[in-house]
Amino acid sequence: MRTQVAIIGGGPSGLLLGQLLHHRGIDAIVLERKTRDYVLGRIRAGVLETGLVRLMEEAGVADRLHREGIVHDGTQIAVSGEMFHIDFKRLTGTPVIVYGQTELTHDLYDAREAAGARTEFEVDHVAIHDADSDRPCVTYQQNGQEHRIDCDFVAGCDGFHGISRQSIPLTARREYEKTYPFGWLGVLSRTPPVHHELIYANSERGFALCSMRNENLSRYYVQCALSDHPEDWTDAAFWQELKRRIPADMAEQLVTGPSIEKSIAPLRSFVTEPMRWGRLFLCGDAAHIVPPTGAKGLNTAASDVHYLYNGLRQFYEEGDSEGIDRYSERALLRVWKAERFSWWFSGLLHRYPDQSRFDLKMQQADIAFLRDNEAQQRAFAENYVGLPY
Amino acid sequence: MRTQVAIIGGGPSGLLLGQLLHHRGIDAIVLERKTRDYVLGRIRAGVLETGLVRLMEEAGVADRLHREGIVHDGTQIAVSGEMFHIDFKRLTGTPVIVYGQTELTHDLYDAREAAGARTEFEVDHVAIHDADSDRPCVTYQQNGQEHRIDCDFVAGCDGFHGISRQSIPLTARREYEKTYPFGWLGVLSRTPPVHHELIYANSERGFALCSMRNENLSRYYVQCALSDHPEDWTDAAFWQELKRRIPADMAEQLVTGPSIEKSIAPLRSFVTEPMRWGRLFLCGDAAHIVPPTGAKGLNTAASDVHYLYNGLRQFYEEGDSEGIDRYSERALLRVWKAERFSWWFSGLLHRYPDQSRFDLKMQQADIAFLRDNEAQQRAFAENYVGLPY
Repeated sequence: MRTQVAIIGGGPSGLLLGQLLHHRGIDAIVLERKTRDYVLGRIRAGVLETGLVRLMEEAGVADRLHREGIVHDGTQIAVSGEMFHIDFKRLTGTPVIVYGQTELTHDLYDAREAAGARTEFEVDHVAIHDADSDRPCVTYQQNGQEHRIDCDFVAGCDGFHGISRQSIPLTARREYEKTYPFGWLGVLSRTPPVHHELIYANSERGFALCSMRNENLSRYYVQCALSDHPEDWTDAAFWQELKRRIPADMAEQLVTGPSIEKSIAPLRSFVTEPMRWGRLFLCGDAAHIVPPTGAKGLNTAASDVHYLYNGLRQFYEEGDSEGIDRYSERALLRVWKAERFSWWFSGLLHRYPDQSRFDLKMQQADIAFLRDNEAQQRAFAENYVGLPY
Repeated sequence: MRTQVAIIGGGPSGLLLGQLLHHRGIDAIVLERKTRDYVLGRIRAGVLETGLVRLMEEAGVADRLHREGIVHDGTQIAVSGEMFHIDFKRLTGTPVIVYGQTELTHDLYDAREAAGARTEFEVDHVAIHDADSDRPCVTYQQNGQEHRIDCDFVAGCDGFHGISRQSIPLTARREYEKTYPFGWLGVLSRTPPVHHELIYANSERGFALCSMRNENLSRYYVQCALSDHPEDWTDAAFWQELKRRIPADMAEQLVTGPSIEKSIAPLRSFVTEPMRWGRLFLCGDAAHIVPPTGAKGLNTAASDVHYLYNGLRQFYEEGDSEGIDRYSERALLRVWKAERFSWWFSGLLHRYPDQSRFDLKMQQADIAFLRDNEAQQRAFAENYVGLPY
């Protein structure tokens, strides 16, 4: 079979790209290794930058997002038991929208089905061929059958462990990586959020985050050892630890309940360069990972989709390859800014095993400067709500 | 003999404090271990924040500074051969003034002599007694003679290696320190500065700084190994290395000449807490050291002097000890901000032996964010021209 753009990976990047292309009459097939239910079962963050919201609007799938998403005009940062506010709206004119990645993915699948666009689930042995030629193709197995898609372009939206990045020869790419000496233990519970905004907490016992999905679904995290297992942590132990890391008045107000999900995620910074190899373009986690502090993962994937979508549109509608030729350069320019922010914000809030007393003082001074300095708050807010595309 | 304030150390902190107190009719004696000529022979930086200039004015010693000091409205930052400007004047309304610390110290000595205020040079075996009582005293030797000064207060302005800090019992203080794995090789030459503003350069070969004392006296630095010795570096080798670290057009314009001073300084961040023990108050380098990146050493000493001078004035003129009681707290609040800035700015510009490829990318991204983001530039400029007292 034949399509214009073969999209590998049916997560939010691949689906958003597919939907945007569909609106422009550009044909795409999405290949997903798992089932739709599996994809929708993944628990992920959901703080959306304005840029991503605009893309969802352009793709015609922003109705529920605007109806159910919670507008956050700012965020709370807690340190040494005290909390201060950073007012995104005042500092940048822009809020963020809290809307679970699961919901967003759901909306994209619904729209894709309504449009009759083709998605192949439970595909296996996906391979990209001749990406460095004018005639790439993708082969895969499904129900034991071999399939082949001839296409103009391949969009690699299949995440960090996907085959897209690995299809680029090692000699043609360069990777940058930092691993962090701790993880995030996350708990999802059907309880009202402790605060109407997110609370990022730096405490003597380590980092904590009070987040949410909606008014009766809370997501909380505590920094934990990489060697910890979720089953080591009873719900009671988790709530107790969380309470010790957030300001006392928040701990008092915290409504606890049984966890409906509990997992540990490692933290990683990762970038591969370039993000294009011939007619293969990497998007989102396939090309870069950020630690979750500051919620830049999904949003940075969206900025890739923005550059790739516009490049493809320019190619098909204007016969101009400038946009796809400069895709990697443009995407990476913004990727490195998001990497910088996520790395810096992680460093601001976590305890590190090798932190000296001086390092701790610098961390406190950095937080104090953010609390007290308007210009620093503005720089923070501009990053948090999303730097311009 | 007897005085109100015994000032240990005849460097700029001690002299400025003495001069300010003198103007208010508060009696002080300055004790200096070396000769006046020795003190004036020290080569030090000279970028003055507005706060320090105001104190010099209040002390009545700012005439020459205003006549001969060079007003800098901004600074240059160079990276990967390109240079960008940070406009202090536009961003903060305030410039800095380039005026050598040697000149400033000279002015203070002249004023002290003109006022007939007492300075004892070449004193030895200085010891502070009973600082934790209401009747402290200072003893010293001079020309083999024992002397004793009874006083109300002792100001420890005798630098990192002085006896003041060490007079505070170890159980009563806490020290924070970071050493950096490189030094600064500095050269002074009677040549016109390569640029009318300072150039801070991050290059693949390490940090470089193009600074100046006046229109025909330049001060240049390159990051070097801690194991280097000044005599390992010929003038030719120094100029060659400097040229390789600054943008090509600057290297072309650079006027070289024989060095009239060449030395290597290690970089250190250091703070001791608290800055008060009974009736002993630490000021400047006696309490804290910053790496020279950003020129915060002398300026932070001046902010200590500001808080101590006002505290003593309040005590003698209003009989209120609030200012001296809160001296340590107020001084440290600003000290840690200067420490943060100097540490961050050093990290931004130097090469570190253990930097990973990812770390290097973060350094580049930090510089790019400073180049491209107005709010970040403002936060930088506010720190550089001096945070408010």
